Amino acid sequence: MTKGDPVLFDRVALIGVGLIGASLGLVMKREGLAGRVVGCARTQATLDKALELCIVDEATTDPAAAVIEADLVMLCTPVGAFAKTAATMAKRLKPGAIVSDVGSVKQAVIADLLPFLPKSVHLVPGHPIAGTEHSGPEAGSADLFKGRWCILTPLQETDAGAVKKLTTLWTRAGMEVEAMDAEHHDMVLAVTSHLPHLIAYTIVGTAFDLEETIMPEVFKFAAGGFRDFTRIAASDPVMWRDIFLKNGDAVLDLLACFTKDLDTIKRAIHRGDSKTLENLFMRTRKIRKGVLEAHQD
Amino acid sequence: MTKGDPVLFDRVALIGVGLIGASLGLVMKREGLAGRVVGCARTQATLDKALELCIVDEATTDPAAAVIEADLVMLCTPVGAFAKTAATMAKRLKPGAIVSDVGSVKQAVIADLLPFLPKSVHLVPGHPIAGTEHSGPEAGSADLFKGRWCILTPLQETDAGAVKKLTTLWTRAGMEVEAMDAEHHDMVLAVTSHLPHLIAYTIVGTAFDLEETIMPEVFKFAAGGFRDFTRIAASDPVMWRDIFLKNGDAVLDLLACFTKDLDTIKRAIHRGDSKTLENLFMRTRKIRKGVLEAHQD
Repeated sequence: MTKGDPVLFDRVALIGVGLIGASLGLVMKREGLAGRVVGCARTQATLDKALELCIVDEATTDPAAAVIEADLVMLCTPVGAFAKTAATMAKRLKPGAIVSDVGSVKQAVIADLLPFLPKSVHLVPGHPIAGTEHSGPEAGSADLFKGRWCILTPLQETDAGAVKKLTTLWTRAGMEVEAMDAEHHDMVLAVTSHLPHLIAYTIVGTAFDLEETIMPEVFKFAAGGFRDFTRIAASDPVMWRDIFLKNGDAVLDLLACFTKDLDTIKRAIHRGDSKTLENLFMRTRKIRKGVLEAHQD
Repeated sequence: MTKGDPVLFDRVALIGVGLIGASLGLVMKREGLAGRVVGCARTQATLDKALELCIVDEATTDPAAAVIEADLVMLCTPVGAFAKTAATMAKRLKPGAIVSDVGSVKQAVIADLLPFLPKSVHLVPGHPIAGTEHSGPEAGSADLFKGRWCILTPLQETDAGAVKKLTTLWTRAGMEVEAMDAEHHDMVLAVTSHLPHLIAYTIVGTAFDLEETIMPEVFKFAAGGFRDFTRIAASDPVMWRDIFLKNGDAVLDLLACFTKDLDTIKRAIHRGDSKTLENLFMRTRKIRKGVLEAHQD
């Protein structure tokens, strides 16, 4: 697409203009992908910020108003709010519109949205794997998606043209797009994202409960590994609350494996079993190699 | 100190020329801190590499030979090797020499070294909190220590002049130096470094045991949090094995708290208790603020 090309969507509704919604708004502007963007948020203060930063052209606190005439409705709120939003906006959706999202869980999102959507609307669930530990419209960046992966989890009956348009959208935002089924997505993301976040939240919370006298030094000497965990555990609390609740089964299954492995290590330390520790640490070094070879660092 | 100043140590023995030993060798060269540096390693191949990279001036595989006439003997091997090294080198130590180290545990290091050292020698245990996930002399960098903390844990009877010289050494390497007692060090580092590493090793190991079909995608989509854990879990296996064994009590105590906290979160997910999750995640966000205010990121 070059200058003068028609826009990809005449009208886009961004439901939620936090880190991801705002970044999508900005990149759509930069790339000329949308004719007009309407933003929706719960508070007028957030919308004022989004207007001020030129993330959206119009703004409303009412999802039902936001989606009128929209060719693309992109849900960018925490996933726990999707069902209610769908119920509110369903009757106002334009026939032929595409409904998509950016949530980190996909089976639950499909289950929450599908019952409300009219047959004339195309659901293309998606997950751009990008983010920072910051939240809100002011954290948005048109470069957030650059070089990262976006996973789409279309249903078998989803219109191929709708999937293609979403693929173009995220590709133009700088992402590599891959399709897979929702169940597989939720399992892979439980490993690569949900469990790491859960563990980071836990360990940082554990540190918080230590005697107060030790905390200033925990902050001061955080560079030894703890710092990375505090960054991960600074991510949006409501977003992550919803992810854990909505992908609970996969997360709890993995946690059971993790706890078993942790018990093995505990026993090895307790017994002074150096061989077991060394073998484990050798193995994990190999995994790092795999990540580097997949160009993920 | 400016050009023409006398060197801080006429002769330095680096026992171990891995990431930290090599980096110290390089910064001593750049800053003109040592007259002559002798490196000691178990294999000739490592020593050849250290000589080739101009990290050391002389090299030997025998610690007893390395320490002859040395004014500073710096132990830079994994801490599990310290007792044996001390036994081997003790009789050859120069009266008035300073013996120090860079180990991540301090109580066990003191207990392992002290029985072997002659009274005429000054023990100044130290811990420069710096590193990367890479190992070996070729990973060394004269800038590794810049802007980071170094903790010294001198004993009550340690000569003040020796502590001052070590403080100067690490300050000239670019570090801020702080003294505390060994027990306190081990507790703080268990929180900020040892537990995070242990958890990272565990979680990456857990991922490794998943069905093989999922692994390529775990690598591919590692950016969601897992990537940071793989970096931490790629650190030197022998070094970390020794740290966990040598600081086992503090690490196991903390692990008990962590496991209890993890159980609370498990129950919250299982019950769909969104309030508990959100409260925890709000708290951890505050801790991140503390780390940022301590300028640790």
